Amino acid sequence: MKIALAQFNPIVGDLPGNARRTLDMVLDAAAEGAELVVFPELSIVGYSPHDLLDNSHFIDVVEAAIRHIHERLPIGVGVIIGAPVRNPNPIGKKLLNAAVLLEKGQVARITAKMLLPTYDVYDEYRYFEPAPSQEVVEFHGLRLGVHICEDMWNIEEYSTYHMYDRNPVAELVDQGVDLLVNLSASPYAHDRHGVRSGIIETLCRRHSIPFLLVNQVGANTELVFDGDSRVHAADGTMLACAPSFEEALLIWDSTSSEPCPLPKRERVADLHRALVLGIREYVDKTGAFDSVLIGLSGGIDSAVTAALAVDALGPERVTGITMPSAYSSSGSVSDSEQLADNLGIVCHTVPIKPAVEAFGDILTPLFEGTKEGIAEENIQARSRGLVLMAVANKFGQMVLTTGNKSEMAMGYATLYGDMSGGLAVLADVFKMDVYALAEHINALSGTDRIPRSSIDKPPSAELRPDQKDEDSLPPYPVLDTVLKLYIEERLDVDAICSKTGYDADFVRGLLNAVDRNEYKRKQAPPALRVSIKGFGSGRRMPIVARIDRNTMDQMMRELRVEPHHD
Amino acid sequence: MKIALAQFNPIVGDLPGNARRTLDMVLDAAAEGAELVVFPELSIVGYSPHDLLDNSHFIDVVEAAIRHIHERLPIGVGVIIGAPVRNPNPIGKKLLNAAVLLEKGQVARITAKMLLPTYDVYDEYRYFEPAPSQEVVEFHGLRLGVHICEDMWNIEEYSTYHMYDRNPVAELVDQGVDLLVNLSASPYAHDRHGVRSGIIETLCRRHSIPFLLVNQVGANTELVFDGDSRVHAADGTMLACAPSFEEALLIWDSTSSEPCPLPKRERVADLHRALVLGIREYVDKTGAFDSVLIGLSGGIDSAVTAALAVDALGPERVTGITMPSAYSSSGSVSDSEQLADNLGIVCHTVPIKPAVEAFGDILTPLFEGTKEGIAEENIQARSRGLVLMAVANKFGQMVLTTGNKSEMAMGYATLYGDMSGGLAVLADVFKMDVYALAEHINALSGTDRIPRSSIDKPPSAELRPDQKDEDSLPPYPVLDTVLKLYIEERLDVDAICSKTGYDADFVRGLLNAVDRNEYKRKQAPPALRVSIKGFGSGRRMPIVARIDRNTMDQMMRELRVEPHHD
Repeated sequence: MKIALAQFNPIVGDLPGNARRTLDMVLDAAAEGAELVVFPELSIVGYSPHDLLDNSHFIDVVEAAIRHIHERLPIGVGVIIGAPVRNPNPIGKKLLNAAVLLEKGQVARITAKMLLPTYDVYDEYRYFEPAPSQEVVEFHGLRLGVHICEDMWNIEEYSTYHMYDRNPVAELVDQGVDLLVNLSASPYAHDRHGVRSGIIETLCRRHSIPFLLVNQVGANTELVFDGDSRVHAADGTMLACAPSFEEALLIWDSTSSEPCPLPKRERVADLHRALVLGIREYVDKTGAFDSVLIGLSGGIDSAVTAALAVDALGPERVTGITMPSAYSSSGSVSDSEQLADNLGIVCHTVPIKPAVEAFGDILTPLFEGTKEGIAEENIQARSRGLVLMAVANKFGQMVLTTGNKSEMAMGYATLYGDMSGGLAVLADVFKMDVYALAEHINALSGTDRIPRSSIDKPPSAELRPDQKDEDSLPPYPVLDTVLKLYIEERLDVDAICSKTGYDADFVRGLLNAVDRNEYKRKQAPPALRVSIKGFGSGRRMPIVARIDRNTMDQMMRELRVEPHHD
Repeated sequence: MKIALAQFNPIVGDLPGNARRTLDMVLDAAAEGAELVVFPELSIVGYSPHDLLDNSHFIDVVEAAIRHIHERLPIGVGVIIGAPVRNPNPIGKKLLNAAVLLEKGQVARITAKMLLPTYDVYDEYRYFEPAPSQEVVEFHGLRLGVHICEDMWNIEEYSTYHMYDRNPVAELVDQGVDLLVNLSASPYAHDRHGVRSGIIETLCRRHSIPFLLVNQVGANTELVFDGDSRVHAADGTMLACAPSFEEALLIWDSTSSEPCPLPKRERVADLHRALVLGIREYVDKTGAFDSVLIGLSGGIDSAVTAALAVDALGPERVTGITMPSAYSSSGSVSDSEQLADNLGIVCHTVPIKPAVEAFGDILTPLFEGTKEGIAEENIQARSRGLVLMAVANKFGQMVLTTGNKSEMAMGYATLYGDMSGGLAVLADVFKMDVYALAEHINALSGTDRIPRSSIDKPPSAELRPDQKDEDSLPPYPVLDTVLKLYIEERLDVDAICSKTGYDADFVRGLLNAVDRNEYKRKQAPPALRVSIKGFGSGRRMPIVARIDRNTMDQMMRELRVEPHHD
């Protein structure tokens, strides 16, 4: 049987559009002889629809969209779509996260998700009741073990947050299955491709059953989906794989056991593609902006952001702007002009000195006799933010912010200043990875598309004379190591010191700075999430809180409490 | 037996401080002869600790804090605290949301929550495994039915999001219970006091058992807790009630059946107290700011915000600032000065004209030949935001934003302009309730503390000549009606039109505007939540999305789909 893997790119909430494009893909698949077409999890609404699911009218429209597809299907083709469906049980959450098998003239058959991720960026138990069980679906003589995303992840070595007490895949296999079919909406992160392969190979070998996974592709606000849809044979060998980071229709003949070449996935190259896709999708799917505007400082973050934007949208939809002040180095303008030249983008220059001076003047009566400090530095950063927003508002552009994850962690950024914008491109990319991206971008083009001087100069905010990041922050290789252990691996001072050998007071100071700056991140624009733990909806920290590690440590020492080992 | 209801105000994350203050309250209760002291849900960490719970080290410190309390208890006094405890089962979430009964020299006894709210502002299944059952706790001859917050809420007429398949209170009662004991962290909203009374009276009468509820008090970021701890007799009569909106230790003698006077709760008076508490707690608990700064426009929103701030912090910790521009009415300064006079606060005047002109000048080369519009209006609003932040940064103040819920819904606010600040005081208060608050504030003082002219003038953003809110928005009584039905009751166009008789195109336009402005609210400061559905963590909407009600309606009509009735 020919089975089509519809690696679909839905727009969240666009039920009529998603229904129409679902039908288009079904017709294309049918034309290629497919008997079954499999779509990703929640394909009809896009992942995640969030609280749209709380609106009963929206679910009415979902039902209409499913009927719309159902009534228009070609004869002889089965289609499995992902959709929220109403829970038939009046007890429990109102919805199920379902796979719906549609065939022309037949009643829809529903399988619902049993394991509902409710951690990190996932809120599924907010909306869905876990299905009490799943039944094998027989389709044209093939016994399909249809299940949804997390249902396949209950494997000890891949469990991060917790283990579940049910194992849907094993339960399906017990019923007798010819092919395991997983509908996913599993976002990209650095290591996800390898983890998916590891899990699927484990399951294939454990059960001696082939496995087909169809994942969403595209990006919705912070989440980027790489697709990575594939088929593995009963022995785990990969038989087919869709191209990553793009919509695709992959036809697989279930009689074939020919291995496919393994997809080449490289960490920095993937990161580049993920960010490019994230920018393009935000602009195209909102449809609210023609182009993007980026404040160019001459530094590496804004240069990399601009290059990514050009790769996403083309040079004609990207504009740069340099906004020198009294403290800007000569390089800040010349490096930016060089960058704009390399990228082929328009670059404006708007010196902010007159505005900064005007604020100085009108604030003189109030500020007289005070010492220059953060307030004055922020006036510069915010004057730049204001100019960016004014230009963007005037010409219908969206501002991309350029701050990286290391800075966002430490609060080394000005709220309403350089944090102004609609999308934060690098806010989930540590500074050392920004360097790696710059080298990758230059290697791809074979030239110094990112000017060498922007890569080599010591990072600086240029808000006071001779300011350097390293006056306020530790060297980035050290900083990034500590931040990664705290944020992504969720370790605290003692564990980080054991791993790194760094001094406890030093590490504690960094962790305290991360905690203290939660209020800034609360107001940050959405950031493209490319790690296993980004700032944003995946990391929900209290703002009004008191985390005093010194008194905590003291209490622990007095009681001689030993740390728990998970 | 004398039982103390410890209506406790924890600081989120402050384990050593919360432990110390827990012990202080226990000693006070013991001095008054209490044998049992009951604290609220998660009292040791504060509600909600959010992702602090994902950090294993933090849970180690929780365990130390519990031991710290346990070892220092006076002999003969039992204490029930709320705490996250590690799930002894290796399967499932790593924590339980527990009530821990501590007595000197005895093993701690643990009861864990069965019903975990995971909707609106609640994320409990993110961290906690539901307890499979609860056992009655025998304490000094009394059989206590200890359960936690949501465990008592599974009653058909009060269920908003879903029903649960378990009923912890009924299950406890089946074991034989002398007293039901509920530990809550149940935030304030307009109607919560009455709902709590209704549920408890229903349970008392159904089971003929007295009921004791201890609720958290205070505020943590967006959530405000009114306390409202109480004891009801087996027939539902209220026997004791703690003062609302303040920390309190209420001692109740279980041999007494004397009814207490019913607490007077009035909607607008409660709203006033909730907002005042929310402001005070944000400032005091973060400890990062000495005082607050408020931009005064002469309008009602900023006037009410300033009055609330003075009621929260005293006039010496509140500063006003007027920032007239070319389009400001003469009233904008004089009404603000009158207000500052009434409130006894310092008020600065910083005319922004020179800064706005400087931006005009530096942007002339770029903007030449374009028409004045939103970009120029936003330059004014953002110049004000910049001045506010500069003054606040200079003098260690926090800016309070003044926008109301009606404006925030419609996006009638400028990002990085009037939306700049650390806490949004009125962003969950519809405009008509801002008027009600103004009248309440004046009635309390017996004078026009909020100047009559600020109440009576037509609302205006004053960003262009003769601008009025009603040029862009419908009259507020109409707007608020529609917004309340959409946001709080989660109805869509058809249902809203049936309820109100308003025109479908008109309502659709308003709903579309709410959806379209999600990106602004994403970057808004945290708002004090005082309704059943505020913007913020309780309402999670996609930003990159396409909700096209016209095409949706068309699809529905073609298929003649009937709406579902929940």
